[in-house]
Formats: sequence, structure tokens, C-alpha cells
Amino acid sequence: MSDRKLRLGAFIMATGHHIAAWRHPGSQIDSGTNIDHYIEVAKTAERGLFDQVFVADSPGLWFEGDDEAFSRQGRVSHFEPVTLWAALAAVTKHVGFVATASTTYEDPYLLARKFASLDHISKGRAAWNVVTTGAENVHGNFGYDKHPDPETRYEKAHEFVDVVKGLWDSFEDDAFSRDPASGVYFDPAKLHTLNHVGKHLKVKGPLNLERSPQGYPVIVQAGSSEPGKELAAATAEAIFTAWTSLAEAQAFYADVKGRLAKYGRRPEQLLVLPGISPVVGRTQEEADAKWAELQKLIHPSVGLSTIAPFWPGEDLTKWDLDAPPPYIPQPPLGRNSRAHVVLELARRDKLTVRQLYEYLAGARGHWVVVGTPQKIADEIQTWFENGAADGFNVMPPVLPESLDDFVDLVIPELQRRGLFRTEYEGTTLRENLGLERPVNQFTVRKQKAA
Amino acid sequence: MSDRKLRLGAFIMATGHHIAAWRHPGSQIDSGTNIDHYIEVAKTAERGLFDQVFVADSPGLWFEGDDEAFSRQGRVSHFEPVTLWAALAAVTKHVGFVATASTTYEDPYLLARKFASLDHISKGRAAWNVVTTGAENVHGNFGYDKHPDPETRYEKAHEFVDVVKGLWDSFEDDAFSRDPASGVYFDPAKLHTLNHVGKHLKVKGPLNLERSPQGYPVIVQAGSSEPGKELAAATAEAIFTAWTSLAEAQAFYADVKGRLAKYGRRPEQLLVLPGISPVVGRTQEEADAKWAELQKLIHPSVGLSTIAPFWPGEDLTKWDLDAPPPYIPQPPLGRNSRAHVVLELARRDKLTVRQLYEYLAGARGHWVVVGTPQKIADEIQTWFENGAADGFNVMPPVLPESLDDFVDLVIPELQRRGLFRTEYEGTTLRENLGLERPVNQFTVRKQKAA
Repeated sequence: MSDRKLRLGAFIMATGHHIAAWRHPGSQIDSGTNIDHYIEVAKTAERGLFDQVFVADSPGLWFEGDDEAFSRQGRVSHFEPVTLWAALAAVTKHVGFVATASTTYEDPYLLARKFASLDHISKGRAAWNVVTTGAENVHGNFGYDKHPDPETRYEKAHEFVDVVKGLWDSFEDDAFSRDPASGVYFDPAKLHTLNHVGKHLKVKGPLNLERSPQGYPVIVQAGSSEPGKELAAATAEAIFTAWTSLAEAQAFYADVKGRLAKYGRRPEQLLVLPGISPVVGRTQEEADAKWAELQKLIHPSVGLSTIAPFWPGEDLTKWDLDAPPPYIPQPPLGRNSRAHVVLELARRDKLTVRQLYEYLAGARGHWVVVGTPQKIADEIQTWFENGAADGFNVMPPVLPESLDDFVDLVIPELQRRGLFRTEYEGTTLRENLGLERPVNQFTVRKQKAA
Repeated sequence: MSDRKLRLGAFIMATGHHIAAWRHPGSQIDSGTNIDHYIEVAKTAERGLFDQVFVADSPGLWFEGDDEAFSRQGRVSHFEPVTLWAALAAVTKHVGFVATASTTYEDPYLLARKFASLDHISKGRAAWNVVTTGAENVHGNFGYDKHPDPETRYEKAHEFVDVVKGLWDSFEDDAFSRDPASGVYFDPAKLHTLNHVGKHLKVKGPLNLERSPQGYPVIVQAGSSEPGKELAAATAEAIFTAWTSLAEAQAFYADVKGRLAKYGRRPEQLLVLPGISPVVGRTQEEADAKWAELQKLIHPSVGLSTIAPFWPGEDLTKWDLDAPPPYIPQPPLGRNSRAHVVLELARRDKLTVRQLYEYLAGARGHWVVVGTPQKIADEIQTWFENGAADGFNVMPPVLPESLDDFVDLVIPELQRRGLFRTEYEGTTLRENLGLERPVNQFTVRKQKAA
């Protein structure tokens, strides 16, 4: 266990993960489209020796709803992830870049191309967070009449990832001789045309880009649904997940690691990285005060909009915020875990309406740890050493302030405990994460055939 | 005429525009995927006060053919343009970035998003070179059974550009108040959903990105066919074109400028920028020697592959390179002007096979000027002052060497003549090019309705 290294990613959400972060003086208020903000944050992450920075994404608006709550959203305008990370790759040297892109709405050839470009530009620091897009409001942007159902989306995702990997392998690693004397630039026998024809996709290839420093970008997956776990087991090298208790996180960890064998993979080939939203204070009182200050910034209409879906057809603005909800409905069928959690809190703990939305709005249901660097390091260490996590996706409540706090206060504590690196081990993201560089599939086939 | 400013773009082609550039010691041999090379070149262009750098693109291989000629191509592996320019935007301050993207094979929502991101990231230095993709070998990468015909491609291009402009206007310029005190971030009444349903595209919107510094990126067009000129007249703010004589360039200039009125546009709203491939020497002898050295590097199989299409079905490798072609066929029907030019040279001037391919291969039929800085400045001045050009797209034969030559030797000569700037006039590409910032179409509609 002693040489096992903690992996840390910084999950960058414009002004921060707290829903009211943009109103906080520690945030950069226009950060969604402020490149200098992202440069600062990436450099801070690199100063903290983070493995990677990560942005979530949806190819459409993050939020829609009644204008009152909508007008108070700080996340309405933001960069396309690969374009953003390419810019930051040019001004950093070590940190990796995880960009989210959708297998439901993007094109595999263009996606393969932009991610391979990012891997070259960053000299081997790119990763692709494979999502099928959960949002129901995006399909119209792509000419679809409706959002495909999860089964169809995940079926296509498997095929899509295979196609993209095939395109990334178009050129073998040693295809380019570039010999000015003979005038031979590359060996066409080491260029492979995919000629994929499948249920969802038809893609000829080859990609017009040589194999990238990492072979291909690290594959990340972020859904914890049943088909999400299966996609991760089949293809992902890191999985982002959200749990608020050690027991749940342990169960999930064992579950996904246990699914790898049937795909011929070993447990260490998939890193499990739960989210943690740390509110750091030099004392517990300071941390509590910081959190209370943030929670106070949630405008009631924004807070109510987060719990309104659990009371369908109801106008929550008429309710007393400081009393329990007038009634508690049955949770919806299916696996909407947030609804179950919130309605259970309302039933069991008799939380007020304000307490309910503060619970959910603070970090959108993610794990919030409010405390000293020691307390936060304790939690991280407990999860890391007890089969719940290979590392964490750190979700700063306010950006840039909370990431500075984490880097200045929590990272040194993790280093003192011998849990975290004191310098980068390698030059590529794969090297830092301890992940193998994948062998080119066409080279493997040729070797088998020979 | 005296306050009219010469516009200069640097057309960046990996190792350079000469077909054998990669074999030349002045080129960066792996430049297609070498980010440091592109950073150097962009900084050189900025040192030379260029308005913009530009990359051509095709979402597939640039060249295919028999392995012998194919293996000698230096352009087989290269970055996706927007990803590349985003990286360079982070390490430059003034130069603009023109990225090529296809209306036939890209998706309008994703394209609008990446270009708007680039315009934000570069703080107003992005431009989109609208192409319909001429290459016949690309459609398979996107699941098409065949390459759409030009009429269909250009019809879709008009609609596509309109859709993308509509998405770029999703938010009005003053939509974001970002007031922490009231908690109001933006005004939903200033967010507009496009709801486009047309012959080729169905795109709902809105874009998840606020209006960019330039309103939207500068629109560029690069085809000189009849539908290309019409697309430029309808939508473009700069047009790249290729002529080798003043008379042809003048005719083209008058032609496209004359088409603007019917779209309600003024002549100065479309800049005409012919290509020029300058081979610069301190003396004419030095320049001639440089050119001869480059031409000598063309391998016969590569040279023959450029003229082979004009002798269909013929095996040119059996011909004597230093004799005229054994026969001269009728040029093909249609508007393939290169075939006409080459076959006419063969007929009229009795050029040898080698001379023919050297003519075509050197700069792919573009205008090559071999000479002193004075001679090159003379040519530029003549075209600029005689209704043939508003500026030029400079095509360095070898990169980075030839761009350094141009910046160190030709730019000072143009400045001495008062033709070119001695410092950047503005902070955005539009400001430097003297192009207006477009008004938001939804704001205009509201004002008209009021």
C-alpha cells in the first residue's frame, strides 16, 4: 500500500462549485469566458502538483427554467473545453487536461482530431471525459427531435469510443522516418484505414494526425449509472463519481473494480476518483464561517429551483422557507438519487425548505467537507486507505479562492503524511497517473499475424 | 488612397508552401505536429506586425495516391486548426488567427461554439475561413456515401453561415449585468433562441456562450469559383485568392467588389487578399539560387503526381523528364484552371516534363516572386495601388526560414514606402483590418420593432 500514490484532479467550474459562488468576493465573476482566470487556476493547480484539471460540459445551456431563477445562474456562458485546454496547454508544463465531450452529439472524426491535437499540443497531457449527455435540452441544437434514451446513448458510446481509438491508431508509432536525404517522409504501410461500419456510426478514416505522445488521451468516464459503470469498465482509465459516505464509496469502488476482469483488464487500470468539495479554514470555526457565508448567498428562487422538480406541479415560492415542506411526495420511480436523498432528509430529519435547498444547492449533492487542513486530509486518507478511492476530484466551492486554499493548506498536509507527490513523476499525464501508454491496435494485429 | 492600409496575412503551411520544403534545412521537419514551431512562426508574424496567420484545412488526408509519391509528402499529419490557434492565442497578443472549417462536414452548433471560444480566448482575434471542402476523399470520414456536388455544398454553406451567425448573436452585448448585490447575473430577455429550420439544417439554440469581443469572428472565404465568389459577396469580410498576373487579379478584384451592392454591402467591407509566395534574397542572384535549390529538392515521383491528373490513364514514370511530354491532351471540361494553365504551357512554351511539374509543384500554382526585398515590395505596391489587392496572403515557401526573411527584409521596405503599419492600430483583428464590429441581429430587430 505504501507506494500507492494519491491522484488529484481539480474540477474547475467557472466561478466555483457552490451555486452562489459568483456572488462571493473570492470568485472571478465573469470566469466562464475569462481566459486569464483559467490560466491562473491552471497554474495554481500545477503549483499544487495536481495530476489534472477537469471541466464538465454540455453542448447547450446548463440550466433553463423560469426567468427569475435563470437570471441568477452564474454558469450560463462558458468555453468549449478542448479549445480552452489548448490555450492553457501553451502556458503550463505539467498539469493534465480532462475535457468533456459527448458521444451522443459530437462527430467521432472531429472529436478524435481535436483530442489528438490537444495531446500533441500539450505534449501528452490530454484526457477525454466520455459522456453521453444527460441534459434533455440539448438535442434541438443538433437537429434531433428528442433526446435519445439512455440505452441507445450508451450503446452508441461503446461504439463511438472504439471508433475514436481506431482513428487515433491510424498511424503506427514509427510510421514517420522524415529522411531529407532519401526524400521519404513516412511509410504508407504503417498508415491504417479504419473502415468502420457499425450500428450507429460509419467512419472510414484514417485520421490526418500521427499518433500522439500518450498513444491516445487518457479515457475518463463520469457517470455512476449501471450502463455508465459498464462503459467505464470497458473503456475508462479513470472514473469520476459522487458519494457522500465512506460506505457508499467503498461499495462503488468494489463494484467497478470487479467489472474489469471480464474485459481482460486489471483493477489498477481504472482509477476511481470521487468528488470532494473542501471548505478549508485554519480553524474549524473559520471553515464553518466560510461555509455559512456561502450558503447565505443562495437566493431563494435559485435554491427553490433545485428542489422544485421533486414537487411536480407545485409553486414553491408560496412556501415558508423556514418551515418544513407542507407535504412530502413519493419519490419518482427510477434512479434519480438526488430526489430520494432530499425527500428522505425532509421526512426523517424534518428539514426546513431552506435547509433542504441549502443541502442540495451547496455542491449539487456532492461531498462537502468543511474544516481544517488536518480534518480534510483525514477524510481523504481514510477513503484512500480503505478501498473507497484512488484519489479525488477536488471541487473548489469558490474559484480561484478555494483552490488557492487547498493548494496552500491541504496539499502540504497530504505531503507531510507521505500521501501525495512532492514533484511530478513524469512528463505526460499517463506517466503521472501511473497508467500505461496503450499499444497501437494495428501494430498488435500485425505482430499477431506475423 | 494615401490612408488605405495594406493588409498582410501569413498563410502557414507546416514546413512551408513549396512541395519539397520539408527536405530543406530551413524548415522544421516535423512541423505539422510541432507546437513549438507554430509558436515560433506566430511570434515571427507578430514581430512583423502581420494582421493574421492562417491555416488551410481538410478534415481528412491532404493527399492520397500511389505509395511512392504519397510516402514523400510532408503534409500528411497536422493539427486541427481551432485547437492549434487557441494554444497560440495564449502566447501572443496582437496577431489574428484565421482557422479553416468546413460547412459540409462540421456541425454548426459545435463550430459556432469553438470559434466563439477562440474569439474570447484570443480577446478578439479570431476569424473563420468558410470552406465547403473540395477534397473528394473526405466524405467517408463522416458516413457519407459520396462527396456532395458543389451546388449543394454552396447552398448549404449560405444557410450554415447564417445559422452560425445567429448562434453567435444568442446573447445581446449587454445581456450580462453580473451584480452580486442583487444576485442577478444576466437578463434572460436578452437571450435569443434561434429556432432555425431550413433546407439543410435544423438548429434550435441558443449558444451557451456570450457574444465575443469582435461580435463574431471575421468571416473569410477562399474559393474563386462562381459560387465561391457569390458566397464571399454575401457573407465574407476577406477573400483569399490565387492569381499570377496583375490583369487577372484586377479582373477578379473588380468582379467580387461589384457583387457586394446587391447584398447591401459596401466595397470596403470585403478585403481581397491574393496569395504571394516570396523567395527573398539580398540580391537577385541570391534569390534565384534559393529558388533553384528548392526546385532541385522535388523528387520526380512527387513532381509527376502533380501533373499526372492531366494525362488520365497514362504512366508518366516512363517519360523522359527532360523532354516535352510525348503528347498534349485536350484539357478537361469545367473550370479546373490548373490543367488549362499547365497544358497551355506545354503547348505554347514547349516546356519539358520536369519544367512543367516544377512550375506547378513549387507553390501549387500560386504566384511566386523571386527577388530582392525591393522587387517584392514593387510587386506588392503595384497590385495594391492598381485595383488588384487590398493586401496579401503571404505564403512562405519554407517555414520558419522564409517568414523570417520576409519579416526582416520585406516588411521594413514596405514600411519605408509608407505602405504598411509600424505598430498595431487596435487590439482586435477587426480593428487592425479596419472592419466594423457587427451589430447583434436580435438587438437590431428589437430596435426596429420598438
